Amino acid sequence: MSEVREKAALAKKAAQAMNRMTTEQKNEALLLMADALVTNSASIIEANARDLERGRAGGTPASMLDRLALNDQRIEAIAQGLREIVELPDPTGRIIEEATRPNGIVIRKLSVPIGVIGIVYEARPNVTVDAAGLCLKTGNSVVLRGGSAALESNRRIIEVMHEALSRSALPPEALQLIESSDRSSVDEMLKLNGLLDVIIPRGGRSLIQNVVQNATVPVIETGEGVCHTYVDDEADPAMAEAIAINAKVQRPSVCNSMETLLVHERFAGAHLAALAARLQELGVELRGCAKSRTLVPGMGEAAETDWGTEYNDLILSVKVVSGLDEALDHIRLYGTSHSECIVTGNTERAERFLAEIDAAAVYHNASTRFTDGFEFGYGAEIGISTQKLHARGPMGLPALTSTKFIIHGNGQIRG
Amino acid sequence: MSEVREKAALAKKAAQAMNRMTTEQKNEALLLMADALVTNSASIIEANARDLERGRAGGTPASMLDRLALNDQRIEAIAQGLREIVELPDPTGRIIEEATRPNGIVIRKLSVPIGVIGIVYEARPNVTVDAAGLCLKTGNSVVLRGGSAALESNRRIIEVMHEALSRSALPPEALQLIESSDRSSVDEMLKLNGLLDVIIPRGGRSLIQNVVQNATVPVIETGEGVCHTYVDDEADPAMAEAIAINAKVQRPSVCNSMETLLVHERFAGAHLAALAARLQELGVELRGCAKSRTLVPGMGEAAETDWGTEYNDLILSVKVVSGLDEALDHIRLYGTSHSECIVTGNTERAERFLAEIDAAAVYHNASTRFTDGFEFGYGAEIGISTQKLHARGPMGLPALTSTKFIIHGNGQIRG
Repeated sequence: MSEVREKAALAKKAAQAMNRMTTEQKNEALLLMADALVTNSASIIEANARDLERGRAGGTPASMLDRLALNDQRIEAIAQGLREIVELPDPTGRIIEEATRPNGIVIRKLSVPIGVIGIVYEARPNVTVDAAGLCLKTGNSVVLRGGSAALESNRRIIEVMHEALSRSALPPEALQLIESSDRSSVDEMLKLNGLLDVIIPRGGRSLIQNVVQNATVPVIETGEGVCHTYVDDEADPAMAEAIAINAKVQRPSVCNSMETLLVHERFAGAHLAALAARLQELGVELRGCAKSRTLVPGMGEAAETDWGTEYNDLILSVKVVSGLDEALDHIRLYGTSHSECIVTGNTERAERFLAEIDAAAVYHNASTRFTDGFEFGYGAEIGISTQKLHARGPMGLPALTSTKFIIHGNGQIRG
Repeated sequence: MSEVREKAALAKKAAQAMNRMTTEQKNEALLLMADALVTNSASIIEANARDLERGRAGGTPASMLDRLALNDQRIEAIAQGLREIVELPDPTGRIIEEATRPNGIVIRKLSVPIGVIGIVYEARPNVTVDAAGLCLKTGNSVVLRGGSAALESNRRIIEVMHEALSRSALPPEALQLIESSDRSSVDEMLKLNGLLDVIIPRGGRSLIQNVVQNATVPVIETGEGVCHTYVDDEADPAMAEAIAINAKVQRPSVCNSMETLLVHERFAGAHLAALAARLQELGVELRGCAKSRTLVPGMGEAAETDWGTEYNDLILSVKVVSGLDEALDHIRLYGTSHSECIVTGNTERAERFLAEIDAAAVYHNASTRFTDGFEFGYGAEIGISTQKLHARGPMGLPALTSTKFIIHGNGQIRG
């Protein structure tokens, strides 16, 4: 039996026991895991150093090495993340609906763990802990397949967490790491119907698209965000500038940052030059349509491919539009249904935008950067869903549950 | 552009307008559709007769011809189904959550239509109307691809419904029928990410598995039911007999009927012969394990493949087990997570069964035949989900909705 199938089968068997764990037992296990990570940080950093060395020797880009790197402070933050999950309410074991039918059967709809969750992600050891914590807290087993560049770090982290679980009520087999660095191990996970109940990809576009295109196991698509801010001609100029700058500059590498600025032609005539200058001062490279380039001399030219690109960087495409309708059409064509914003003082137009744009989160006069589990008050998230089934937007603990109908009778049969 | 892509694109465009329709407008359209079907029943029956003739000439089995056949009474029942959907509450447009965050942004989670729903189904013209009604009532567009043996019937039914929609506020383009009888039209639908938001297969195992195995669009898996009834040694014999007979005999062709009877060895010793005789009197063919065959002379022998078979017929596999644990193990191995039942007077064992069996519906002392939208009080259903994401068990109107976060601010940016 392959490593993937064997570990998934162990996870599925453990899911039976996980289903019976109390909130207290799950929380205790998470706290033991958090403490163990801190206690064993030296050996984790040692393993991480080997990954980093291999990465440097192989020419891994500095930004990837940075996301891979661990130190005492980062491990403490990761452990703290687990402790924060402990504080969140347990979404399982709740009776969501209850009804006694005319024939006397009592039907209860109960929230339950999903079962076995597969996570496919990049070389980010923090995701290993974070995903484990979220899945175990919700009573699920989890099969992790992280980027092979983090294998030594992940292996040591899992050892430490397994040891902690062995001192808890939870079955350590509920936590599985696929160690094969072969891409075929991912392909095998994607087809494990019957053993995995869902696969959640976390990473960049190519990782996510590989999962979406090839999985037969149900997938929750996450993350890709070509987010727009539309500045209407009735926008307050200072507010528009603050929101546009925040959405682009505050953390450009994440999915809820702005990639395209759409500007009403009247607003553009009066304010685009100043706004562009502010963005450029902050290091943003601008790529504009023909109209915006006549208003902002020296602005680069946007190619057709720019409109669909998630830069995740200090680059912004800029388009002048004739009004709300053109903005709506543009977003429908190029948006990824993640987060979209209108800045306007005109309530009617705002309501049209909010109603007609089909996205996980639509904003009136606030930065798209708020699409985040913590900002929404849900706590840690396993990802941001950009699909419409099961969960949409920031996915907190409830997104890791399913339901089950439990029916009590006293001999009822159907007539 | 292919027929599939062209019609899906029209459906997607119409989904924008559908999203704005009021409950009253949607209900009015459904009532117009219902009336039009009755008014035009002669021409529908004429088209159906051509399908039936072609089917008979091609050697289609009688059971399939029966499900394909329409007459005045059936068309009236189908129209009545639409009128019943009108009576159901509209699940869209509800504010599910609302919170004002410390920074003053107001976040509302709103229930919204999914968008465009693809339905792949067999040669059953009633599903054409039923699926159209459920999808339009929830503000969705729908792309239907029914079995080609019903093409003439479906084409005429869609014409009639389109004509009715053209007299309503709803865009007729929200309702699309794929007419190509080529299997490649199904394959094309399964990969239409970006145009279809979900595909729901309705039909037998091979149809469902084709969709699950090949779709890149999210799927809601429905229907396959290898359902068990476990009769414990503390079961009331009369209740056990009534439930077992109802679960097998009342309507054997449907997914929530029983396929395997598991019997505690003590109950079997005292009562299996009598229960088997009753089932045989009712025309049920029994296929038993070795132990059950020693207790019921003349019972046929179950092959290994019987345990995983959904007969959908008056056939039942029978296994004597040593107790609850063996029953749980058997169900875990062969069940399809649809509906499972324990008959027992022992509360503790019942609670263990209900907690440990991982299925959409678990029953204590009631027939599995109750897993049904109407029986649960939800009204018409688009199918019974056997997966754990998005919806599980009978899927009523709420299963055809998604959510959307709407955020109002007054200039908030993220710090």
